Parts: sequence; structure tokens; C-alpha cells
Amino acid sequence: MTNQKELRIGMVGYSFMGRAHTQAYRDVSYYFKPELKPVLKAISGRNEANVKAAAEQLGFESIETDWKKLIERDDIDLIDIVTPNNSHAEIAIAAAKAGKHVICEKPLSMSVEEAKEMKQAVEEAGVIHMICHNYRFSPAVQYAKQLISEGKLGKIHHFRGVYLQDWLLDPKTPMTWRMKKAVTGYGTHGDIAAHSIDLARFLVGEITDVAGMLKTFVNERPVAGTENETDTVDVDDASAFITQFENGAMGVFEASRFAGGNRNGNRFEINGEKGSIKWDLENLNNLHVYFHDDEPGLQGFRLINCTESEHPYAGAYWPSGHILGYEHTFINLVHDLIEGISTGKNPTPNFNDGVENQKVLEAVAEASEKKSWVQIPHN
Amino acid sequence: MTNQKELRIGMVGYSFMGRAHTQAYRDVSYYFKPELKPVLKAISGRNEANVKAAAEQLGFESIETDWKKLIERDDIDLIDIVTPNNSHAEIAIAAAKAGKHVICEKPLSMSVEEAKEMKQAVEEAGVIHMICHNYRFSPAVQYAKQLISEGKLGKIHHFRGVYLQDWLLDPKTPMTWRMKKAVTGYGTHGDIAAHSIDLARFLVGEITDVAGMLKTFVNERPVAGTENETDTVDVDDASAFITQFENGAMGVFEASRFAGGNRNGNRFEINGEKGSIKWDLENLNNLHVYFHDDEPGLQGFRLINCTESEHPYAGAYWPSGHILGYEHTFINLVHDLIEGISTGKNPTPNFNDGVENQKVLEAVAEASEKKSWVQIPHN
Amino acid sequence: MTNQKELRIGMVGYSFMGRAHTQAYRDVSYYFKPELKPVLKAISGRNEANVKAAAEQLGFESIETDWKKLIERDDIDLIDIVTPNNSHAEIAIAAAKAGKHVICEKPLSMSVEEAKEMKQAVEEAGVIHMICHNYRFSPAVQYAKQLISEGKLGKIHHFRGVYLQDWLLDPKTPMTWRMKKAVTGYGTHGDIAAHSIDLARFLVGEITDVAGMLKTFVNERPVAGTENETDTVDVDDASAFITQFENGAMGVFEASRFAGGNRNGNRFEINGEKGSIKWDLENLNNLHVYFHDDEPGLQGFRLINCTESEHPYAGAYWPSGHILGYEHTFINLVHDLIEGISTGKNPTPNFNDGVENQKVLEAVAEASEKKSWVQIPHN
Amino acid sequence: MTNQKELRIGMVGYSFMGRAHTQAYRDVSYYFKPELKPVLKAISGRNEANVKAAAEQLGFESIETDWKKLIERDDIDLIDIVTPNNSHAEIAIAAAKAGKHVICEKPLSMSVEEAKEMKQAVEEAGVIHMICHNYRFSPAVQYAKQLISEGKLGKIHHFRGVYLQDWLLDPKTPMTWRMKKAVTGYGTHGDIAAHSIDLARFLVGEITDVAGMLKTFVNERPVAGTENETDTVDVDDASAFITQFENGAMGVFEASRFAGGNRNGNRFEINGEKGSIKWDLENLNNLHVYFHDDEPGLQGFRLINCTESEHPYAGAYWPSGHILGYEHTFINLVHDLIEGISTGKNPTPNFNDGVENQKVLEAVAEASEKKSWVQIPHN
Repeated sequence: MTNQKELRIGMVGYSFMGRAHTQAYRDVSYYFKPELKPVLKAISGRNEANVKAAAEQLGFESIETDWKKLIERDDIDLIDIVTPNNSHAEIAIAAAKAGKHVICEKPLSMSVEEAKEMKQAVEEAGVIHMICHNYRFSPAVQYAKQLISEGKLGKIHHFRGVYLQDWLLDPKTPMTWRMKKAVTGYGTHGDIAAHSIDLARFLVGEITDVAGMLKTFVNERPVAGTENETDTVDVDDASAFITQFENGAMGVFEASRFAGGNRNGNRFEINGEKGSIKWDLENLNNLHVYFHDDEPGLQGFRLINCTESEHPYAGAYWPSGHILGYEHTFINLVHDLIEGISTGKNPTPNFNDGVENQKVLEAVAEASEKKSWVQIPHN
Repeated sequence: MTNQKELRIGMVGYSFMGRAHTQAYRDVSYYFKPELKPVLKAISGRNEANVKAAAEQLGFESIETDWKKLIERDDIDLIDIVTPNNSHAEIAIAAAKAGKHVICEKPLSMSVEEAKEMKQAVEEAGVIHMICHNYRFSPAVQYAKQLISEGKLGKIHHFRGVYLQDWLLDPKTPMTWRMKKAVTGYGTHGDIAAHSIDLARFLVGEITDVAGMLKTFVNERPVAGTENETDTVDVDDASAFITQFENGAMGVFEASRFAGGNRNGNRFEINGEKGSIKWDLENLNNLHVYFHDDEPGLQGFRLINCTESEHPYAGAYWPSGHILGYEHTFINLVHDLIEGISTGKNPTPNFNDGVENQKVLEAVAEASEKKSWVQIPHN
Repeated sequence: MTNQKELRIGMVGYSFMGRAHTQAYRDVSYYFKPELKPVLKAISGRNEANVKAAAEQLGFESIETDWKKLIERDDIDLIDIVTPNNSHAEIAIAAAKAGKHVICEKPLSMSVEEAKEMKQAVEEAGVIHMICHNYRFSPAVQYAKQLISEGKLGKIHHFRGVYLQDWLLDPKTPMTWRMKKAVTGYGTHGDIAAHSIDLARFLVGEITDVAGMLKTFVNERPVAGTENETDTVDVDDASAFITQFENGAMGVFEASRFAGGNRNGNRFEINGEKGSIKWDLENLNNLHVYFHDDEPGLQGFRLINCTESEHPYAGAYWPSGHILGYEHTFINLVHDLIEGISTGKNPTPNFNDGVENQKVLEAVAEASEKKSWVQIPHN
Repeated sequence: MTNQKELRIGMVGYSFMGRAHTQAYRDVSYYFKPELKPVLKAISGRNEANVKAAAEQLGFESIETDWKKLIERDDIDLIDIVTPNNSHAEIAIAAAKAGKHVICEKPLSMSVEEAKEMKQAVEEAGVIHMICHNYRFSPAVQYAKQLISEGKLGKIHHFRGVYLQDWLLDPKTPMTWRMKKAVTGYGTHGDIAAHSIDLARFLVGEITDVAGMLKTFVNERPVAGTENETDTVDVDDASAFITQFENGAMGVFEASRFAGGNRNGNRFEINGEKGSIKWDLENLNNLHVYFHDDEPGLQGFRLINCTESEHPYAGAYWPSGHILGYEHTFINLVHDLIEGISTGKNPTPNFNDGVENQKVLEAVAEASEKKSWVQIPHN
């Protein structure tokens, strides 16, 4: 295999997401036949010992301790950003200016303004860009999209989405950067409500108006490794908002890290004129589909195991009924990323989606502050 | 059995709800041993032929064609109001003034003001009063209440409730009084969001702030029995709102008659510091309960079939696992009504609950109008 | 209402089943418009005090302390037998000879021979007869029958049915007549496997060959009200058997009172050439239906809430989505019983079904003994 | 990395299973830190073009067109057999004699006799051996095992297992080697009932007695690529059997490829003195667990998402609630295989399990023939 056929990855950061992305780069060629073969070229991080360990564990060929060096390297085609949110913009913009394709974790940025700058940078550079809203790459969600696009649900009336977790329920769970505004921007809102917004935008369309509330249940948390030290949580623990969609649908959203019994409860329901759809990440292969014109007496939600050749991406894996997991959402995403890079047609979700998503996040925060509805400009 | 031991019922109206209430009066003595035995004394309605047919079908001894006559009768102890919403206040106030106990369908009234007048009337008359929020009488819901009262869930963080139906999804479904503001007040909002509000108030507490939206999807509907005539829907088809509770919990509510595949989807989830609860009317015997302090590895929602002697009211019926249905919520409610009348201690939910419920309904409508949050005074 | 229009009930016994039957007699006229109105004429039992109390609680007009006297009475049209199994035959045969219609609890008898005598007696007397396999009267099961009869599932390949309970799991649970062979015949096998056999015969057809095993897990149980006395369990605690059906289908059956977590787990699945069906008594309104010729990609079990007007019997009750409970199976059964009596056409399941059911029970016991397959003659 | 630290794989065959095993060899080091790193050294198959394509797709370094040559190679440590069943014995025995470790697909062989020869060969050679019953490597199943081993369920009374598929439901589905006795041995029985038997043996213990039936629903099937040619199915389409376990438990088993709506319905339930467990491959992360000594009123099956660090193997992957799929069962199995090879302690399930499994398969077939119970010798 010649060099031209490789996609040489440079990753910035090596957390949970770094591990998930890398797994996808490693496995995508096993299931699909992408034009380009991902090569784990280099990974960067500030702490040399840690980044070396990460490189070995994940399988990267080399390391950098300064992401700027990584971006300067000639042997890197794609920069993959899996750092905390407050560094996304600087890295992505620099990478674009250096002519690298960019894939960035969500949420895209700390603000709409920053997100727009990022978008402008990648567009001006003419590089391929993506944002890692991986859940829309579940075959069941892709199939939902297909059914909606084909008009099988008719005009959409309702979207209701929750993303419920419970890992902060115990007030003694220690502080992390995910609870510090300066690093993360929003808390639960930016971390997981952002995923629900992405699913809503993907499946229903743009959101034009919001009313909402952000709430913090536990204001002080212990600092890990200390005896009695605590630190202040200055972001939301939960968010809830109601919306208007451009196409007339109503939306209801809720995200929380305090919903006991929900480890990763990313769920949505969509009701249209002709039918309905339900999905739940914790059983991500299943799609529940209802058609209002099924024969009377026989109307009911169908429980569909989306592992069949008819379901997007699923045919690349195993026979029907052999279920897929969390990783496969990333593998499918990387499949689209490589296809985008090899064809020059930018895939979705990309930095434009990042901007629009950020607008909704920001509008909800503003609405929560102002105690009023807020309109969201789309242009 | 002597006269003193009877509870003589006078019913105003004879619709779906009249049939449900009557069933409960007929069966309550079979399962429980109430102090008073309900007697179906008289039923009133304007159309003599119809009310006669209803009396025969339901088993009432006599009829009246004017509810005022019914109220004047000496042989009536309790007036049961199952008429459309715009007549509740006049009948209830007259009944109270005549010294009759009163039970009234929900929503209590057309406005908070009217509701307060009704409450004042029953209190001044010293009669027993109830409002028919029957769903809180499901043994599973009563058990949820018990668990919360015992502190098993700790401080409550979240209530999310939906009441989803789909009987208006087809735009050709004809107009009824339930879509005319002058008769019904609110549409879906007053009819079924009111039930979710009652469950929230019962289980979590008073709501202090709301933001919301009411929406109509189909504005004109055919008039039944005509060829091309249509009539204007001037109430909401769906409502959605987010709330603050007095105790610091967040609430998210949604009600719709356009949610395909949901025939009677009255569902709620509650998340507290120590555990969570889920319930769904369409499988009303089941309560899902999660405890955060269950042994690690063994934490998960328990599916509890609330038909055991430990579950409120359930012991009066059948052995464990023999499921109860919709009627049993009314039988349990009537059990409490009779106990209230025989002991003189007013049961819940009553006209005070009707007032507080109406405050929330009205505040949501106002918030929807004003595009802002609205505070709800409790006193 | 004249005497001719009444159906005058004489009940023998007043246990759990007596209470369930009586409830049905009380309520059937409320939901349906039967030709005959059940009247609770008399109830018999050996202990005068107990039978008096039962009569008052259930609403019977009079009592007898000798069932033979009850059968002699002129003012009784129907004898309802809810006594332990060893007395069914004598009472039913006497009742038939006295020209009374007869309804009898299941299992019909202590043996196939006895069952045949009972059948002969009712047929010779020309009276109407039924056996109380009430579960086939769930609207969901009746709808399953309709789908199969219409050929919607095609030729049936598989029936698998379990009836799992757990009330004997604790070895300290005391002895009752249900564990004494002389009174009950079989244990779990006759009590609840009989229900699965009835569902299989109703939905799939006659069983021609069986292999099986009966098993007792706890051989001695405490005698209630004593300190240390125990008594010997001489019946099965669980039964399992595999079968051939006349039409070529395979059957797998299991019944147990030792299946923890199953309070009343009467469940079956049927797989045919064109589709499948699943049902579970603990959520008895739900029927799961799968069609193999649904569009590829959209194939999956539909969850149907059988409370709609299209579902047998369901239209008599409440609007869609208002769930029915255990009692409604008896009300529907009594509806058919009255229709049978008023038209003279014997309804099902009747004593013939009792005979065929008993043949299967007995063949399984024989197969368990002999350690071989046993053929079942049908004629 | 030095040669000593590698585990050099030689695979015989390259079907669906070859692809699944290879995936596991590729990924095991990413999630775990095994002592040996699998290297995809060589793959063999008779058709050179096909095996070359497979080697490229799967990532093997070299090919052989004769498995005997593969076995002779010095640079192979482990022979992985994924060929049809009738070649397992010859290859495995030759591999063992050549001093290679052996992993073999299930069922182990065409007969108990053959299986015993294979077991003897690996034991005499002192090589490590495994059989690919991968489903017991689901974290949920491993956790079930742990709970049972800890006595959390008490003495086991019941095992009921089904493995239901529907890919042969259509009589027009063409013939494959899986329906030819000479190549496959048993049909559905050996292919998937074998998995249920493995789960039962793993979780409950040895089976000592069986009665059963094997059945073929469609006897002739089209030959793919021909116009009208058909071929005879000479194996079973479905099997059902009831069993005694050594420890006194009862077993009920059923397997079919004709159970519409079940794509891969490998499910079991276990009931013990103190609790119960349920599992379903189609939602393989979920384990349902019931404890009979949970507080009365709060007893119910807990739905546990086995993706937490408390659940065997799960900690190696992602945070709680990020679900695992089908591949992970193989990765976990390969983890144990490598650990076995590096420590010299033979892992389970191995050829001994293959022998015992085959005994049950064969006893059921014999029982089906003889129409009687058959005892299974264990020694």
C-alpha cells in the first residue's frame, strides 16, 4: 500500500474520547473498504510520560508534547481534537491554517462566536471538518433518519429527547474539569444536552425558539486526593428546555447527571402525522417504529433490531441479530470522515452543525438567565 | 340495611366518566367494607330519552331533566358532576349550598377564580368534596407516594411527566366539545396535562414557576354528520412546560393528542437523591424502582407488579400477579370518598387540589402567551 | 324484569374462585346487554357460619349447607362449581341430572375417566356446560385466536408456554389442599399447566404425543397453626413436557410454583409460517405480533394494546388504552355462558375441552412415570 | 516486541466465524494487556483466490492452500479451526500432534466418539485447547455465573433456555452445508441448541437425563444458482428437550430456525431457591436479577446494564452504560485463551466441555429416535 492511500492521524489529547476515536481508526478498514487507510501517526500531550504511555496503549507511532509541533508535521493529514472544550478553537483554527483536515469533539467551542471562527477557518482553508456527534451514527438512528426523509412519518409534530446520567448523584463524587466553567463552558448542558440537540437537528430540523432552565444541585464538591478541600461547581448539573422547530414541530429536552438508574440514558421519541419513532442508547440496536396507517387492531410500536442489511452501516458487520455496541457509532463516523476526505465532499455533522448546535446551547442559557423565550437566528 | 347506612348518589351527566364513576359505586362494597353503601338514586340530563336510557344502562333508580331539581331532592347525599367543564362551577356551588357532598370531574373549572369560588362554597357549606384525579389511586402510584414519603428516594431532583394520546392525529377526526374553548376551557392542556400536574403535586409538591407553550396543529375539523361543514378548534392540541417546584426539584411536562402510537400514555419518572421511580398508565400495575445504594453491580430498576398486599388498596382485590385495570382507580377513589363522608375528614384530591392544579394550568397558558416565565402564588 | 329473563345462580363453594365468578355475574350486565340477567340466588357450603358470611360479602340471597339441596331447588338455573377438584364430578353429574346448567372450575376432574362421565352426564341431560379456563377470554388472546383463524400466521410450527409462579418457593410456606393428591389430583400440573394446555388447544389444536416430567422440590411442609407438625406433599411442584400437535406443530410446556419473581407468569409464544405472537398474563392487555412479510427493515414485533374496538370483547369496556384486568376475563367468559344458555348453543371451553385437557394432563403424568413418550387418543 | 511475546495464529477456514475470531485477535490487546500479542500469521483454504482475498481482508500475513502445510509450519503457535463440523476432528488432532495449541468452533465434532478422540489428542500433546462457546463470555452471563457461584440464587431449581432464529422460515431459502448431515452432523440442534447446552452446563451443571424431539419442517430446498433444482434437508430444523441436571434442577430447552421475529434469540432463565436470572442475547448487556429476600413490596426483577467495573471483563472497555456488542464476547474469550497459553493453565470452555456438550446433543437425538428418556454418563 502506497503513502497516498494512507490517512495519517495526529491526535491532540488522549482521554476516554481519544481511546474511542483510535479504536475506530483501527477497525474501520476491517469492516468497510475505505479509500484511505488510517495510520496512527502521532499523538500529542503536555506530559511526556503520560503521552508516551498513551501512544503505546493506543498504538500511535510517535508523540509530541506540543500540539503546535504536531500540526506543523508534514506526515499528518488529519488533526483529531479530543482535548477539553476551551482548547478546541485554538487547535482547530491552527490545524486548518496548516491545511490539515480536522475532526473535533463536541461541543465545538466555548461560545457561538468562537464556533463561527472555527467554521470560517476550516472553510477558508478548504479542509474537511467534522464534529463528533457519534450517536447519530447508530444504524437505528440512521434508519430513523431514512424513514423520516422518505416521508414515512409525515410532517413531524413532536420531538422529545432526554439524556440522563447519574454519575454526579452522590455529592461526594469529586470535582473534575467537566464541572469548571473556564474549561468546559457549560456542564451537563454542553456535554450531553448537546447530543440531544444534534439528534433533533439531524432528524427534525433547526430550532428557532427556546425557553429553558439550567440548574445546579450540588455547588461544592471535594477535590480528589485532598482531605477536606472542596471546589465550586460553576456549571449546570441539569438543563431542561422547550423549543419551536422551523418546521412547526414542538421540542422538549432534558439532560441531567442526577437521574439515578440512568447510566447513559440518551433517548428520544418523534411523533409525526403518519407515525412515531423511539430510540434509547442503552439498547442502541433497537428502534421502535409505529405507523398510524397500519391495519386497525394491528397498530403498535414495532421493535426493530437494526442489525440487518436494510439498516444503514449494519450490513458491514455481522448477520442479523448480532448486536453492535458503542464503538460502532465511531467506526461509522470515521467511515464517513474518510469518505469525505477521499471524495472532497464534506460529511456531516461538521463545523456548521457545531455552530448551529452551539447557538441552541447558548440560547437556552440566555433564556434561563432572562426568564424568557429566546429566538435563534439561522442564516 | 337501614337508610342511614346508604350513600345516595345523584349524578349530573352520563358520559364516559359517568359510566366509570357508576361502575365504582357499584363495585366498591364488593372489594372493601365501606361504612356507607352507595345507592344509585338519580341521574339528571336535559334530554329525557337519553337520560332514561342512561339510567337503565347504569342502574339509577330515577331521573331528572333539570340538575337543579336533582340538587333539591331530599334523598340525595352526594352530587357527582360529570358534565363538560363550563358547568362544573354552577352545579358544584349550588350542590354545596344545598348541603350535598360534591365530587367533580377534572379540571375543576374554567379559571382559577371560578375554582376558588367553588372551593369557598364547599368549605362554607362544610360538605365533603373531591376532584376526580383517579390516576393517583393506582396502587403503583400510591406505593410511589409511600416510598417518597418514607424518604426512600431522598430529596427529589426531577419530575418528568408526559400524557400522550393520539386520537386527534387524523385531521379528519371530527370536532367535539373538547375542542371548543367556551365549553372546555383548555384543550389537551386542561384534559390530560391536568392529570400529570396532579401526579406531580401529589408526589413531589407545589409548582412555583413555569415556562410553557400551547400549540394547535389542526385548526379546522369537520362537523360530524355534515358533508363539508367544518368548525374551528380554538384550544390547544398539545402543551409543554418546564417548572420549578417549591422543594427545588425541576419539572418537565408534555401533553398531546397527536403522539401516534400512544393511546393513553400517561407516564412519569421521578429522580431523587437516593433513587428513582417510573410509571406508565398503559401498564399501570407496574412500578419501576431504582435504589442508588443497592449493592454495586446489582443496581438497576426493579420491575414491581404492584398487586401485593404490601401495595396500597391492592390487598382488597386478588392474589399477587392478578392485574388490576382502569376501573380500580375509580373504585379506590370512591373508597376514600366514602371514608371521608363517613368520618367527616375531607379526603384528597379535593377542591383545594383543583384550585392549585388550575393555577398551574393557567400559569402555563399565561407563560405561553407572554413568552416568559410566570410565578404561581400559593397561599 | 320478569323471572324468565333471569339466570338464577347456585354456587357450590366460596373460595377465591367463587369471589371471581361472582364478580363477573354482578358486572356482566353493566358492560354487555345479555339476554339473561344473573341473579345470585344461593350459595352452599358445609360450614353455616362461613357460608353465611360469604353470602353477605358476595351478595347471594340465600344459603344451603348441603349442595344436594341446592341442586334440588327449583329457583336455580345454573350450578357453579368452585370446590376442590375431588368433588367436581359428583356435583356436576348430579346438577346435570337435575337439569341444571353447569359451570365448573378447572381442572375438570381427578381423571380422564371421571371427566368423560361428567361430559356424558351434561350431554345426556342436554344442559349447557362450561369449564373455567378464563385466560382464553383475555381480549388479547381472543385476538390471537382471530389472527390464527384468519390465517395471518400461516401454518403453526411452534407453541411454547410457561405458567410460572413462586408462592411455594419458601419451604416454610404451609401445606394446603392444593398439595394433597387425594383432593387436588395433580399439583402445579393440574392447577396451572392445565391453563397452558387450554391456551395451546384453543390456539393451535389437539396434542397427540407427549414426553414429560413431574417433579417435587419440597416434600414436607409445615401444617399451619401447629408448632412443628409437617405434612407430606404428594403432588408435583413443577411439570415440564414436550409435545406433538395434530397439525404438525411442536410444543414445549413448563409450569412451576418455584420460579422466583414470577407471581403469575402465564406466557406463551406461537410461531407460524407467516408470523408470530407473544402474550404474558402479567401484562394481559398487550399482544406482541410479528409478520414475516412486513417490509424488510421494518420487521419486528408490534406491541399492541388490545383495548380497541377491533379487539374481541374490548369494545364493551372503555376507550382505547384504558387497560383491563384479571376480572374482565371472567366477565367475558360469563358473557359467553349466558349467550350459550339463552341461545341453546353450547359455548367453549366446555366439558369436552375439560376431557381433552385432562387427557393431556394424564398422558404427561404417565409419560413421566414410564420415562417414555405417550400417545393421546382423540375421538 | 520480541518473538517470544507473540502468539502466532494459523487459521483454517475463513467464513463468518473466521471473521469474528480474527476481529478478536486484532482488538484484544487494545482493551486488555495480554502477555502475548496475537499475530495473524497465516490462513488456509482450498481455493487460492478466495483464501488470498480473505487474508487481505482479515489481515493475515500469508496463506496456505492445504491445512496440513499450515500445521507443519514452525512459525505458528495456535491453530484456529473455523471449518465445517466434519473436518474439526482431523484438523484438531493433527494440530495437537504437531504441538500446536488449538481453538475449535462448536460443535466440537460429529459424534461423542470423535470428540473424545480430540480431547485425548490435545491432552496427550499437552497443548492448550478451547471450544468457541463465545456467549458465555458476555459480561452479563459471566456475572450470572458469579452470582450463582456466590450462592446468591441458592440451589437451582429451573433452567429454561431457547435459541430461536428465523432465517429458514421461508421454504425458498436455499440449501447450505448447514442442512446436510454429512457435513454438519445435526442441524439447528448442533448449531444453536449446543450454545444453550453450554450456557446450562456453565451456569447450572451437568445434565444427566434427557427426553427430546428433533423435527424438520421443510424437507426440500432449492439449490442456489439453479433454476428448479432442489436438495434434501436431512437434519433437524428444530429441537426441543427436557432434562434432569445432576444437582436436581429441571431443564427445558428449545432451538429453532423457524421462530419468526427472532433473529438471534438466545435466551435463558434460571430460578433458584433465593432468586432468579434472565438473559437475552439480543440485548446482551442486560441481566435481569430477582432476589426473593428483597423487602416485601419491593421485590421485582432488576434490569442491570452489565457495563460496570463490577461486571466481569466490562471494566476493560468503556464507562458504565456504553454498551458492548457481539464482538466483545470473542475478545473476552481470546483474552482467556491467551491467558491460558501464557500461564499453561487450560481455560474453559475446552475440549472436555466439547465432549460433554456432544454427549447431550447425541442423547437428545437418541431419545428422539427411541421415544424414551436417555441417560448421559459422566466420568
